[in-house]
Amino acid sequence: MSDSPASGAPVPGTLVHLDGTVADRARPALRADDLGVLRGDGVFEALLIVDGRPRYLDEHLARLARSAAALRMPPPDAEAWRRCLAVAIDRHGVVGESYARLVLTRGPEGGGPGTGYVLVDPIPASTRRARAEGVRTVTVTRGVVATPADRVPWLLSGAKTLSYAVNMAAQRWARAHGADDAIILAEDGTVLEAPTAAVVVASAHTLRTPPLDLGILASIAQRRLFDAAAGAGWKCGHARLSVADLRAADGVWLVSSVRLAVRVTAIDAVPCPQSPRHDEIVDLLRAD
Amino acid sequence: MSDSPASGAPVPGTLVHLDGTVADRARPALRADDLGVLRGDGVFEALLIVDGRPRYLDEHLARLARSAAALRMPPPDAEAWRRCLAVAIDRHGVVGESYARLVLTRGPEGGGPGTGYVLVDPIPASTRRARAEGVRTVTVTRGVVATPADRVPWLLSGAKTLSYAVNMAAQRWARAHGADDAIILAEDGTVLEAPTAAVVVASAHTLRTPPLDLGILASIAQRRLFDAAAGAGWKCGHARLSVADLRAADGVWLVSSVRLAVRVTAIDAVPCPQSPRHDEIVDLLRAD
Repeated sequence: MSDSPASGAPVPGTLVHLDGTVADRARPALRADDLGVLRGDGVFEALLIVDGRPRYLDEHLARLARSAAALRMPPPDAEAWRRCLAVAIDRHGVVGESYARLVLTRGPEGGGPGTGYVLVDPIPASTRRARAEGVRTVTVTRGVVATPADRVPWLLSGAKTLSYAVNMAAQRWARAHGADDAIILAEDGTVLEAPTAAVVVASAHTLRTPPLDLGILASIAQRRLFDAAAGAGWKCGHARLSVADLRAADGVWLVSSVRLAVRVTAIDAVPCPQSPRHDEIVDLLRAD
Repeated sequence: MSDSPASGAPVPGTLVHLDGTVADRARPALRADDLGVLRGDGVFEALLIVDGRPRYLDEHLARLARSAAALRMPPPDAEAWRRCLAVAIDRHGVVGESYARLVLTRGPEGGGPGTGYVLVDPIPASTRRARAEGVRTVTVTRGVVATPADRVPWLLSGAKTLSYAVNMAAQRWARAHGADDAIILAEDGTVLEAPTAAVVVASAHTLRTPPLDLGILASIAQRRLFDAAAGAGWKCGHARLSVADLRAADGVWLVSSVRLAVRVTAIDAVPCPQSPRHDEIVDLLRAD
């Protein structure tokens, strides 16, 4: 905890620069001409920390590297990120749950190295509430045609970039319309993903999620859930899904690294059945 | 000019915070948890300054306000921006051309006011070269269906946000494929815009540009060009355009506030005719 000299309000959470320097969260850390802010030009990861241990860190570092490659940024130094994260976790405290964000920008537009840092924060109240109560969703179209993403590499499909203004706007739209989160559809109604999560449906002992070649983010939590579920006897696979498929399923979840598996309790104001498998799904993801 | 204590390299350009404070461009100015960088969540404007006078400042401030409204941010304080820009221009020097960027983020994610500042910089060499030589372009699809933008308000169509990673990627794609810039198409081939400019075509004494309801940015430079051209006897209007329409035209330009009207010299490696009207178009935009 540190005090902001500007506001006097305490600023919780930890900031560690990629070189290992612990910094005051309330103090400026990026240049005004950093392309990360001028253009949303950079990449990030968010991951859960349980009792001081970051979950799926290898996968998150691998995806950070894939995202950076998609943006033609230099390869991230995985060991530097591991060291930085370890410092941040140690500084933040190792009891219970927290979450980390790894942020890497392209750096100042005049040139120079990218700006990298780790933030570690307590689990937000909204995340705890979503885990406990589920989320009501509205569907929104991204206006895109559901075609293979490898046809349009400049669209950065599958890269986790800092350009999330539209994702945030979809969540605001949801909140302004009596819901908690959004489910994004292609123009023909194909289910894509949520603004910050993958969509997973269960029907009996089968789990399905949309195929990655639709240009959606490769969810680490979804993949680990499917691996664990397959080990427990579930059938798991990718499938094109419509909203009707979601409604017909036994259960629908938004799956992500920090929220884990959050039940979808309504789609466009129509309640969804409460899956009898919810606790099993969450346990699979937690136990993995 | 100031020296970066980190690199020792000079950092040209001016930084003035919205409260009027002149700051060292090489020093950090934003918090690590500013939503402007974490989410590309903010708005900006770029405008030309000629002999100390910002061009079309009223229009740029009006668009900044529209963009902020689209993102449900508080209305920008136009007078504070005017004062801040005046300080920045005075500091930078008032002889010849320069350009300003007005940047406004949503601020730290824990709450608090947005982060606002003005950057003033010399006209980049790439801009001078584009003005003199024109730009070779490649077409890229945005993968979107060309439907009225008012159907999908959460997509932030027409808002000039800090989430420009895909725009930058389209320009990188162009440079990696022997061109200088991109022309973005809808899925059906309808011409939309360039990553940082409007597309304008001339046929005899008629100027056309794509309609705004395709979800493109309302270009201030294009509108002022059309106003000036109409006053000089040109017919001007909006029209859906295909790449074939661009090829059949007397001339194609990328029009934006800082580059002004830049000739498109090639589309997908096929040369475009050099319009006999180029100088007239540029003069109309400069004289306005």
